[in-house]
Amino acid sequence: MNPSDIEALTFDIFGTVTDWRSTLIREGRRLGKQKALDVDWIEFAHAWRAGYAPAMQRVRTGALPWMNIDALHRLILDDLLARFDISSLSEADKEALNRVWHRLDPWPDARDGLERLRQRFIVATLSNGNVALLTNMAKHAGLRWDCILSSELAHHYKPDPEVYLTAAALLGLQPEQIMMVAAHNEDLRAARSVGFHTAFVYRTEEYGPNQTTDLEPAPSVDVVARDFIDLADQLVGA
Amino acid sequence: MNPSDIEALTFDIFGTVTDWRSTLIREGRRLGKQKALDVDWIEFAHAWRAGYAPAMQRVRTGALPWMNIDALHRLILDDLLARFDISSLSEADKEALNRVWHRLDPWPDARDGLERLRQRFIVATLSNGNVALLTNMAKHAGLRWDCILSSELAHHYKPDPEVYLTAAALLGLQPEQIMMVAAHNEDLRAARSVGFHTAFVYRTEEYGPNQTTDLEPAPSVDVVARDFIDLADQLVGA
Repeated sequence: MNPSDIEALTFDIFGTVTDWRSTLIREGRRLGKQKALDVDWIEFAHAWRAGYAPAMQRVRTGALPWMNIDALHRLILDDLLARFDISSLSEADKEALNRVWHRLDPWPDARDGLERLRQRFIVATLSNGNVALLTNMAKHAGLRWDCILSSELAHHYKPDPEVYLTAAALLGLQPEQIMMVAAHNEDLRAARSVGFHTAFVYRTEEYGPNQTTDLEPAPSVDVVARDFIDLADQLVGA
Repeated sequence: MNPSDIEALTFDIFGTVTDWRSTLIREGRRLGKQKALDVDWIEFAHAWRAGYAPAMQRVRTGALPWMNIDALHRLILDDLLARFDISSLSEADKEALNRVWHRLDPWPDARDGLERLRQRFIVATLSNGNVALLTNMAKHAGLRWDCILSSELAHHYKPDPEVYLTAAALLGLQPEQIMMVAAHNEDLRAARSVGFHTAFVYRTEEYGPNQTTDLEPAPSVDVVARDFIDLADQLVGA
């Protein structure tokens, strides 16, 4: 793989660019204090995230009609509120809580690394997050994207191949001119299967100190980077 | 209309943000010199632009299948090359010429005005240009968008209502939370008919010194601005 063959980098967002876990826990604790809720917000954050793959799977199999991540996050949230015995939230409170996903904080290296990568490549999101969520998050986090691409534009969720192929078509590029950047091997495997190049970035505390998944890249990835600064060093030059 | 009700501004691009005419003439003349072509590039630029509405109309009526603006620009270009008796261009030359639409220069006030508007609003393209074209143009011109929205995402061309409604859905907003910004009354009329607010910006030399269309806004628009700086003064504050 020669970096000069690559025109665009597409980025996974939840976990790769943003630290969903810390943000959810912090915002949960703040809400808990305000509303005097006795909730383990670490457990709550993990449960919310854990509901995500099965919810997308229900869309993928047709058990649910197409709906975007805001809607899926809300479905999962409503279940969790029952399960964690939280009954004092108004509809407005619930909507505000659901929007926490629009306000995720980036990993400390994300903004500067992206800015350097943007000097050489088109940088785009390629997330299961919906367009509004990704747009609001970028604004909140001060992330500068050249283009917001989302599973929502394909009406398919990653790792369905349609997501990557739609992104390539919208960018007017061949898959091999694009590199998918993610902390998740499944995402990279799917991108690679339709012809994308791939970069694995270590996010070994995405799920906290006891993470067991995606601790190492699959051997098939083209580039392995400690973080976005290291990725920029490798792809743009130190 | 109260600016505090508005969350996002969506911008027409060709003519409103970018000066297609000057760029096409300049690049045409450069190519003409290189290739020793005897062509009136002012006439050529106007003819290329004039082919745009009828080409979209053929897509709209189903005479042509869905195709994006890159493809329509190329169809028109191939006709023009025959009509202007230009036969010495290679396929690579033609493709490079067709990509001039990805390299349009912004009007002098566009970048600074947008930057100020972006402090307060989500700013997004909403153009008949395809996503790749808009992404490359923004990079070329140093324009910072929060989100690239395009007719391509609706598989309809403006002024079809689907374009505006798709944009609102992707932004997660109601039409009345969005203001369409354009130098063209037809675009604003269509946006208004589905509930958008509207801002007319004067671009009275888009078609050169003898322009006859869109010299004044329709009475129905909410905001009238001399340029993007004036728009920022009115919507964000001087």
